[in-house]
Amino acid sequence: MTAPRQLSFNIFLHGFGHHEASWRHPDAQPGVVYDAKYYQQIARQAEAAKIDAIFFADIPAAGRNASYGALGQLEPITTLANIAAVTEKIGLIATASTTFHEPYNLARLFSTLDHLSGGRAGWNIVTTSSAIAAGNFGLDEFPDVSTRYARASEFVDVSKQLWDSWEADAIVHNKETGQYADPSKVHDPNYRGQYVSVEGALTNPRSPQGHPVLIQAGSSNDGRAFAAKYAEAIFTAHQRIEDAQLFYNDIKSRVVALGRSEDDVKILPGLSPIVGSTEAEAKAKERELNELIIPQSGIEQVKGNLAGYDTSWFTLENLDKKIPVELFAGAGNVTDNKRSRLQVIAGIVEREQPTLRGLLHKLAGGRGHQVVAGTAEHIADRIQVWSENRAADGFNIMPATYPGGLNDFLDQVVPELQERGLFRTEYSGNTLRDHFGLKQPVNSFEVSQSQQAVRAAEAASARV
Amino acid sequence: MTAPRQLSFNIFLHGFGHHEASWRHPDAQPGVVYDAKYYQQIARQAEAAKIDAIFFADIPAAGRNASYGALGQLEPITTLANIAAVTEKIGLIATASTTFHEPYNLARLFSTLDHLSGGRAGWNIVTTSSAIAAGNFGLDEFPDVSTRYARASEFVDVSKQLWDSWEADAIVHNKETGQYADPSKVHDPNYRGQYVSVEGALTNPRSPQGHPVLIQAGSSNDGRAFAAKYAEAIFTAHQRIEDAQLFYNDIKSRVVALGRSEDDVKILPGLSPIVGSTEAEAKAKERELNELIIPQSGIEQVKGNLAGYDTSWFTLENLDKKIPVELFAGAGNVTDNKRSRLQVIAGIVEREQPTLRGLLHKLAGGRGHQVVAGTAEHIADRIQVWSENRAADGFNIMPATYPGGLNDFLDQVVPELQERGLFRTEYSGNTLRDHFGLKQPVNSFEVSQSQQAVRAAEAASARV
Repeated sequence: MTAPRQLSFNIFLHGFGHHEASWRHPDAQPGVVYDAKYYQQIARQAEAAKIDAIFFADIPAAGRNASYGALGQLEPITTLANIAAVTEKIGLIATASTTFHEPYNLARLFSTLDHLSGGRAGWNIVTTSSAIAAGNFGLDEFPDVSTRYARASEFVDVSKQLWDSWEADAIVHNKETGQYADPSKVHDPNYRGQYVSVEGALTNPRSPQGHPVLIQAGSSNDGRAFAAKYAEAIFTAHQRIEDAQLFYNDIKSRVVALGRSEDDVKILPGLSPIVGSTEAEAKAKERELNELIIPQSGIEQVKGNLAGYDTSWFTLENLDKKIPVELFAGAGNVTDNKRSRLQVIAGIVEREQPTLRGLLHKLAGGRGHQVVAGTAEHIADRIQVWSENRAADGFNIMPATYPGGLNDFLDQVVPELQERGLFRTEYSGNTLRDHFGLKQPVNSFEVSQSQQAVRAAEAASARV
Repeated sequence: MTAPRQLSFNIFLHGFGHHEASWRHPDAQPGVVYDAKYYQQIARQAEAAKIDAIFFADIPAAGRNASYGALGQLEPITTLANIAAVTEKIGLIATASTTFHEPYNLARLFSTLDHLSGGRAGWNIVTTSSAIAAGNFGLDEFPDVSTRYARASEFVDVSKQLWDSWEADAIVHNKETGQYADPSKVHDPNYRGQYVSVEGALTNPRSPQGHPVLIQAGSSNDGRAFAAKYAEAIFTAHQRIEDAQLFYNDIKSRVVALGRSEDDVKILPGLSPIVGSTEAEAKAKERELNELIIPQSGIEQVKGNLAGYDTSWFTLENLDKKIPVELFAGAGNVTDNKRSRLQVIAGIVEREQPTLRGLLHKLAGGRGHQVVAGTAEHIADRIQVWSENRAADGFNIMPATYPGGLNDFLDQVVPELQERGLFRTEYSGNTLRDHFGLKQPVNSFEVSQSQQAVRAAEAASARV
């Protein structure tokens, strides 16, 4: 019998918790979400449980939903740089948008985070699907999804060149000869794209991981193609194992088709666990939280996900009526879809025919990600089944509340997974690549030089 | 007798030290300048000595001088966010360019640093005078100094609006009523400038200091006008007290002319101390360092500062010849000067008529800032004379080497200043504004609302 494969777990940080009403939970302390100590404490607890990484999503725009416990958050890279100082092993994954940054600045921020943390940085590459953000950057028109991904490709290409711009032995630091550096080993990208251009080398030497772990999170067709080419890990949202398997196999075959190995990309669906000592206790916890939501706030969010569809039916008056399936006209089966969240909602409506309130409760926990309320064994079973059946390489854990929901997962579910041999009891390395089991990227400038040497040698031998 | 005024001191972080040859000093440990622990240690030592702040200069471009111990540095804001986690009181000042950032991103980074540090952030606002950086941001043409400052003004104006966009009581967090926030207290800048445009509010609530302390460092005419309007502290470079006094009085009168108080702006000239137990010991330390410089490297730097002048005379062959004064044609007396460093060099040449090697040694220590080699008493005397004679409100301390040169200043000069009553023996507050004695900025959105209320009341009473 071979040892079971080791799973990867991220803790997805999100205000007072992932449940929409988490800010109304008795544990929620006003103001903590803008306090460094709150995140430091969560990171330390996750590290004590040997979790792979913590992760921030991000949109560079303030929200305005008065009944939703988040109007925006601190900038993730800076916050993770702060957390890096009080942790030693746990990975640090920040979301940042290729649509609203300059590559030189962003590549530098991530390289710095990787240096400061000793090789624990990850970048969740997004193109930002929120048109609201565009106005914050002086854009009159919000670029469409294909344009955004075209820019994202150039952006990541040139970022990799920046991260590779210093060869490993570029710094000589020879006090005797007075040579500090070897300029011939510092390379300028000289990149001129349609969307971004960068001339010179980065300010930083190559970082401990070569470059941050590259992560992607959109499930649109453009997003999948991008992920297959660039991503080393993927965050995704599925309610059912069948959907997760379709996605998993689609991505892995795209990855292999591009000449990469299946193991080069970890697929981590979101999972919001609600843990109880009995199933009844877990369900009661979930119900308590669901009853704290503000229906009008939930309706606004659903409508936000349904742009392009007629949303006039979604009103407080219809709260306890079944949602008419025809409102979605087959969107649940669309795979070439620009909006992954719409697809998830349409799927729930088609399969479960819930009332509007039922849908809001279903979404309140994980915004489309699966919520599993049950005992630690039950949750570990779900994790095991998905991971043993090509639906997941690990999970992006979304505690319903902080710190309670996180503690329940770390104290009860993690030991269960460890007992089953599915999760480490000690870190085997120091970097996020070590935790995820990913390769160290080769330096493209060094590669091309050795290729040049090979070609030169071949040319010389042909001449003989 | 009134108590002597309290001075402010920053520690200016810079690779292995401010002396150009610091990387060749026996203390210099290869690689430390990319290690978070190195900066954390420096910050902790400075904090133990009750220093106001630490500070990073910055250019978003890699250098290429093979004999100079710096090719670039980690990104400052992220690095200071890291240091914030292991310090409690010391201010954290990062340089960032208005020419190469988007205001929404940069205002957010600084707001986050201010939140993470509990109100210790400072922003050294620069427009970046290095054309090399322009190519890293896809700019075909490097904007001239007036254009850069015009953009900088818009940039800071809209940044202030972003920092003010949340009123103090915008977050309600009423668990009972289900109201998390009051959207009427979150304000959109809706700013449309010639260079930058920002529609929406920041993602973060107003930070502990209202906004980071605003600092400026250019001495050009555009720079001075900008500083008089926006700056709360100014970094500057002078060799002689007469020049420092001219600058000091010029800035303070410009500040007063704009309706601000003299105390609203702290002026902090650079000072590189080389401390010895005797003057001879200090001079020997300085000489040792000067003898470690690579003349060709120094010549390249001088030539870089002299763009527009004929620099063909500056060669290794002329190293021990006196620099012909006529090469500078009066640049030392130009006050309406776009390049403050040229002015400093021309001043040294006119006054001291040094050999080229002599100039290189003079510049090697502080790149144009004054170097004072002597006993702790001698250095304290210099500080006291400048601060009692309207030349300085404090100093930007540039240790020749780290950690030795810093320790000498903290262990020997600081106690001497404390004994003279010129420097605190304990922090009296928790924020950088507290240390600098600066006011908390009022929220412009709240002000304009109260003004509106006054106007409405006046209009109503006029109607009666």
